[in-house]
This record gives sequence, structure tokens and C-alpha cells, in this order.
Amino acid sequence: MGIGGRRRMGVEERRRQLIGVALDLFSRRPPDEVSLDEIATAAGISRPLVYHYFPGKLGLYEAALQRAAEDLTERFDEPHEGPLGARLLRVMRRFFDFVDEHGPGFSALLRGGPAVGSAAADALIDSVRQAAYGQILAHLGVSEASPRLELVVRSWIALAESTALIWLDGRRIPRAELELQLVHDFAALAAVGAARDPETAALLRAVARDEPGDGPFAELAARLAALGAPR
Amino acid sequence: MGIGGRRRMGVEERRRQLIGVALDLFSRRPPDEVSLDEIATAAGISRPLVYHYFPGKLGLYEAALQRAAEDLTERFDEPHEGPLGARLLRVMRRFFDFVDEHGPGFSALLRGGPAVGSAAADALIDSVRQAAYGQILAHLGVSEASPRLELVVRSWIALAESTALIWLDGRRIPRAELELQLVHDFAALAAVGAARDPETAALLRAVARDEPGDGPFAELAARLAALGAPR
Repeated sequence: MGIGGRRRMGVEERRRQLIGVALDLFSRRPPDEVSLDEIATAAGISRPLVYHYFPGKLGLYEAALQRAAEDLTERFDEPHEGPLGARLLRVMRRFFDFVDEHGPGFSALLRGGPAVGSAAADALIDSVRQAAYGQILAHLGVSEASPRLELVVRSWIALAESTALIWLDGRRIPRAELELQLVHDFAALAAVGAARDPETAALLRAVARDEPGDGPFAELAARLAALGAPR
Repeated sequence: MGIGGRRRMGVEERRRQLIGVALDLFSRRPPDEVSLDEIATAAGISRPLVYHYFPGKLGLYEAALQRAAEDLTERFDEPHEGPLGARLLRVMRRFFDFVDEHGPGFSALLRGGPAVGSAAADALIDSVRQAAYGQILAHLGVSEASPRLELVVRSWIALAESTALIWLDGRRIPRAELELQLVHDFAALAAVGAARDPETAALLRAVARDEPGDGPFAELAARLAALGAPR
């Protein structure tokens, strides 16, 4: 390995570098506005050479998307220790870190970007949602969810996505507030689900038993109680 | 106008007929699987003649989508009378009627169909969401929403979409239950929003004041109270 100066990269190393450069550009601006020339320039190679590594912009976009999907999925990892509310809040913080880092690319992808309609992009989005779903069930200690519990969890994942998209559109609410709000939304949707599904109700009771008085769920309960108090 | 038998249609009449036939086919099966030949056969004309009225399958798909968008938007119309919970429930019933009628096409469009990535399709989806948003604000008696109230309403619209998609994927929960659950979800999300936003809190109090004891919001409150009761 050369110390300092330019040196030839191997094929895999060059592919990894190109994916990193492309992901960075696709994250900062709507991917439709990023040209292959620009990616080549940022990577310090010629446009024809890019084609040596990737079949074109769509191929490079899909590879960048694949890396982003793996990155996001890793951020869902959270030790199965301590109260659930605090765990969800830590995951929401890492989710918003990701959304913050990849804002324009995240919006374009979920609102309809250049690779939308591409089966590969759709499959990647689905795999990330499925990973999130599996992680949440694992934290709830459930291996097979009833249809109503499944609906609660999948609905909440959809809500996290739409909340992030709305946040990116102007950032008019501080993200820390939205991270906490999404944890509260989880409790609210679970409560509505629990109101008609014994499995969800039993889970919610078990979760509530382990929540500390200063956790996010207790905070929501206190806020709601204050809201209902006569004034 | 001929009475009975076949007769020549005018251009506009033929376009309308073709859109109706196409919408019906695109609604029943994933639009990718519907061929232009099939649409021509169902409309009783030759394939080349279809091209006389539309530039191709994508153009016909977008025209069908436009009609579906207008249809769905009309179903949001609801008199501004009586308690809010009952109004929302009636709108949810008409929304699920629409989803039921257009199931496979609705899923394909929101999950990624043939016209996705088409700016026209994206704009249509946005226009329907915007119409829904405007209608809900009008029912709440709000002309300009605070960012937090806007988030509650837009989040709920996203939740209605994702709940409908989950329902279509196997129909494992009766739709009547989901229609009511979405009204309850609205109350739950609004309560979480109200816990940190005075405008949303004031609105929620005003809504609660007008709700009858047998309305959907009261039903949720009773169910949640039963859930919290010692057992």
C-alpha cells in the first residue's frame, strides 16, 4: 500500500469508492439532478471509466441504495435490555440521524425517484421495512404476531416514514420532538389496537409494568392526564 | 341517437368509454398485467383504433388514474353537520368502498406500478392527499394549521393509506373494524399532538364537547378505560 500520493485501486475497492461518492451525492440532492459526469468528477475518474464498474447511473443508484439500506437496517439494532420506551427512543434517534444525513435522497426515493418502478429499489424498500418489523416483534418478545398486532407495528413503521418525510419538508418541528412523538404514537396506536385485541392488550400491560416513571410512556400518560384535567 | 344496436360514438364519448373500460381492468388486476389488446377487446374496438384516442397504455393508464382520483376526492365530501367522529367514520366507509372496488390497482399504484416515476401519477396522488388534507381542516374549522396540527392530519392520511394497503394484503381483518379503528387512530394521534400543542389541544376539547355518548370517540374512551381497569 502506498503511503500518501495517488495509487491504482483494485476493482472492488474502486467500486466501493464509487458507491460511497454516489451515495453522498444522491443523499444531498434529488438523485434526478445528479449526473454521471458529476459522480465521475467527484470520484476523480473519467466518465467512461465509471462504465467499467457500473452499467450506468441506474446501476450505481441501486448499488448506493443497497448500501444505504444496509446502513439503515444496522441502525435498528438495539440491545434487548431495559424498558421498551427508551429502546424505541434510541432507535428513533438513529433513524432521524439517517434521515438527516440522506434527506433529499430519502425524500426522492419514497416520493418517487429515478429508480422508482425499478423492481430492485422496491425490493430494497420492502426489505428495510421487513427488517424493522422483525426487530420490533423481537423487542416485544413475539415470534408470530396476530393480524391486529401486525397492523399496529406495520402502521407505526409507515407513520415513522411519513413523519420523517413531513419533517424533511421544511423542518418546521425540531427533530428531537418528533423522535419522542413517534414513541408516543407507538403507545397510542398500540392502545387503540389493545382496545380490540387481547394479545395486544396483554403485551401493552407487560410493557407498562416495566416502564420507569421518567420514561417516554410515563411522560405521555402525564401529559394526557394534564390535558384531561379541568381548567 | 340510435335506439339499441351499435352506433358510432363521438370522439369524447369513445374516450370516456375507453377510460371506463381501462379503469375497470386496471382496478381488478395489477396494471402491469393488463395489456392494451385486452383493453381494446373489452371496449369492442381494434388495438390500432385505441391509439387513435390515446398515445398508448401509459396515456390510458394516466387518464384512468385521473378519473379514479376525481372519484376518490368526491367521496371525501361530507356535510359539516353533527359530531366529528361520525363524519370521519362515514368518510372512512366510502374510502374503503373505493379501496375495495379498485384493490389491485390501488396497491400497485401506491407500492409502485407502471406509471410510477411518471410525474403525472405522482402529481395525482399528491392532489388527492392535498384534497383530503383540506377537507379535514375544513371539518375541524381551521383555515391555517400550526405545523403540529398539520403533522397530525397528514400523518393520519398516511396511516389511512397504509392501513388500506395492509388490509388488501390478505383481508385478514374485517374492513368495518378498520374503518372504526382509523377513526380511533385519529383521536389517538390528535391526543398525542394535543399533549404538546395548545392549538391541537383546544381543537380536541371542542370536538370532545360535541361528541355523543354513543359516538366512535366515546366508544374508544370506554374501551381504553376498560383496558386500564384492574383485573
